[in-house]
Amino acid sequence: MKSIQAATYLVHFQEKAYQELSKLVDTSNYSTIFILVDENTFEHCYPKFIQNLATNIRIQVIEIESGEINKNLETCIGVWNAITELGGDRKSLLITLGGGVITDLGGFVASCFKRGIDFVNIPTTLLSMVDASVGGKTGVDLGVLKNQIGLFANPEMVLIDTDYLTTVSEREIKSGTAEIIKYGVTYDVHLFNEIKENKNLNINDLIFRSIEIKNEVVLEDPKEKNIRKILNFGHTLGHAIESFHLDSEDKENLTHGEAIAIGMVCESYMSAKLLGFPSEKVKEVKEVGIYNKTKLLKEDFPAIIELLKHDKKNVNGQVNFVLLNDYENYKLDCKVSEELIVESMKFYNV
Amino acid sequence: MKSIQAATYLVHFQEKAYQELSKLVDTSNYSTIFILVDENTFEHCYPKFIQNLATNIRIQVIEIESGEINKNLETCIGVWNAITELGGDRKSLLITLGGGVITDLGGFVASCFKRGIDFVNIPTTLLSMVDASVGGKTGVDLGVLKNQIGLFANPEMVLIDTDYLTTVSEREIKSGTAEIIKYGVTYDVHLFNEIKENKNLNINDLIFRSIEIKNEVVLEDPKEKNIRKILNFGHTLGHAIESFHLDSEDKENLTHGEAIAIGMVCESYMSAKLLGFPSEKVKEVKEVGIYNKTKLLKEDFPAIIELLKHDKKNVNGQVNFVLLNDYENYKLDCKVSEELIVESMKFYNV
Repeated sequence: MKSIQAATYLVHFQEKAYQELSKLVDTSNYSTIFILVDENTFEHCYPKFIQNLATNIRIQVIEIESGEINKNLETCIGVWNAITELGGDRKSLLITLGGGVITDLGGFVASCFKRGIDFVNIPTTLLSMVDASVGGKTGVDLGVLKNQIGLFANPEMVLIDTDYLTTVSEREIKSGTAEIIKYGVTYDVHLFNEIKENKNLNINDLIFRSIEIKNEVVLEDPKEKNIRKILNFGHTLGHAIESFHLDSEDKENLTHGEAIAIGMVCESYMSAKLLGFPSEKVKEVKEVGIYNKTKLLKEDFPAIIELLKHDKKNVNGQVNFVLLNDYENYKLDCKVSEELIVESMKFYNV
Repeated sequence: MKSIQAATYLVHFQEKAYQELSKLVDTSNYSTIFILVDENTFEHCYPKFIQNLATNIRIQVIEIESGEINKNLETCIGVWNAITELGGDRKSLLITLGGGVITDLGGFVASCFKRGIDFVNIPTTLLSMVDASVGGKTGVDLGVLKNQIGLFANPEMVLIDTDYLTTVSEREIKSGTAEIIKYGVTYDVHLFNEIKENKNLNINDLIFRSIEIKNEVVLEDPKEKNIRKILNFGHTLGHAIESFHLDSEDKENLTHGEAIAIGMVCESYMSAKLLGFPSEKVKEVKEVGIYNKTKLLKEDFPAIIELLKHDKKNVNGQVNFVLLNDYENYKLDCKVSEELIVESMKFYNV
C-alpha cells in the first residue's frame, strides 16, 4: 500500500512503515525512545512492535490504564513525571502504541513536554486508525467534556499495521466502522455503499480510503473553519451522548463509535426535518450504522442537552450542527431547536 | 513610544495600547472576555485596566493565587474549569493581567482550551514586561521543575503600561533589572553600562530597549536552536538555584531575578575559567547585579546540581551552558564540569 502524505508527515502502512520508523529513528539522533502503551497494547501489540524496531537507542516503556475515563490531565501529569524521572529531554521521542486515548493523550503530552518533543503515532484500533491518523488533533477530557484541553500538533509519522486489529474486540471494530460510515455519508457514498452491501469487504482498503478522505478534508481546512466541520457529523449530539454515559455510574459506557452512530441517526433525522435530506436515507443510516441497541431514556434527555452546550464548536452558547442536504452534500453551522433534538432522540429509539 | 512588531503581533505601549486593545476587541467578535488576575493585580491593576477597556462584550474575571508555587497544572485545571463553567467557547478571549506566573500560565491555558483561544498579555511587573512580552513561551512548572510543561504560542497583542510598576515592590523591580542586565552583557553593553552608572535611568527606555533586544533575538531564532540560547545566560544554574529555594521549606524563596543574578555571577566565573572572559568583568557583573546577598550553603550544592540535570536544554543528561567570551560575545553549548560549577558557587559566596 502506498504511503499517504499528510500535512507535514507521512502515514505508512504495514512492513514499509516499520522500515520508515527505523529510518527515522536512525537519522534523528534521539536520546531516548519512550513508548506509551496501556495494559492491553503492552500485552498484545508491544511484542510484535518491539521485534520490528531496529535501534540501539535506549527504550523506556510507560504504561497507563486503558479507557476513556483515564484520558485526563491527571494521567498526563503521571506520564510527564515518568518521562522526567526516566531522564527525558528535548531530544526524546514518544511513540504512542494504542487506541485513540493513547494517541490523543500521547500527542498532547509530547507537544507540551519542554515545549514539544517529537512523537510518532501507532494506532492499534480501527477507530484510531481511521480517525486519529491525520488531522493533528491532540488532547484530553476535562471532567466529562471530551477533548476540552488540547492542541493541534503533528506527529513525525504514523505507522498503520492492520495486524494489530486481530488484538481488538468485535465491538471495537464496529466502533471504528461508525467513523468509516461517516466518511461515506458525508464525502464518498461509494464507501458507505460498500459497507451497506457488506460483501468482500477488504478492511485494508476501507482504512486506506478513510484516511485518504480525512486527509483531503483536513489539508483543505486544518483549523476547522469550514469543510473540516463535516467530520463532526454525528459527533455533536454523539459526544454529548458519549459523555452522558461516561458520567452516569448506573449506565454501561458506550464506545465512541456506538455513540457517534446514534448521533448520526439523530442528526440525519434533523437533516430530514430542516434540509429535506431524504427520509429513506435516514432509514439507511439507521439500519447500516447501529450496532448497539442502547435506548436513550426520556428522563435523560435534559442532561444530554445540557452537555451539548459545552460542545467545542458552540459560540455564544448556540449549538452548531453540521447537517446533510443529501449524501456528500452538507450544510455547516445549522441551528437546531431543543424540541427537534428531543424529537430526533425519540426517533432513534423507535 | 512606538509599537514593536513581534513575530505575529504588536507590543503596544501606554495610552496607545489601550486604544489598540479596544480596537481588537471591537473587531474580533469575541463572545466573552476572561481576565486572569491574582489577588494583587485584581486590587491594584484591574481598576485602572477596566476603566480603559471600552467594550460591551461580557467580561468575567478569574482570580488565581499569586506566587510561583501556584504556577502548576492544578491551577490550570482550576482555570479551565472556571472558563468552562462561565460559558467559555472558541470565540472567547483571555486577557492576562499580572506578572510572569499569570502571563506564562494564562498563555498556556488559552492555547490548550478547546485547542486554542485568543489571548492578550498585559505584564504588570518589570520582569514580565522585559521577559515575557515577546518570545511566545508559555508554560507551567512540574513539581519544582520550572516551565517543564508548555508550548510556543503567540498572543494577539501585548499591552505595556509602566504605570502598573508603581504597584509592585522594590524587590520586584530589582528582580526585573537582573533580566535587563542579562540583555546588556550578552547583547548590548550600553544597556549594561547605563545600569552600572545608574544615573538618569529612564525605566520606559530600559523596558523598550530590552523588549527590542529580545524581539530581535527570538525573531532570528524562534525555536531556540542557536542564538536564542543567549537568553539563557545565568538561567541554567539560576533556575536550579531558584527551584532549590522554592523546594526547600526552611529557606526563603528567591525572586526569579535574584536567582538569575546569582546564576549570572557563577556563569561569568565559569566563562572566565573556560573562555578567558576578563576577570574584571566578572567582578562588574557581581557588583552591578547582586541585590540579594543570600549565601549558597556548601551542603546544598549537590541538590542544586541534581536539579541542573533536569534543565530543558540538556541532551543525554549533559548540562549545556551558554557562556561569554566577552560582553556581547557568547559561546553556546558549553560543557562544564561539576567541580567548576561548585567552584563558581563558592566564588559567588565570597
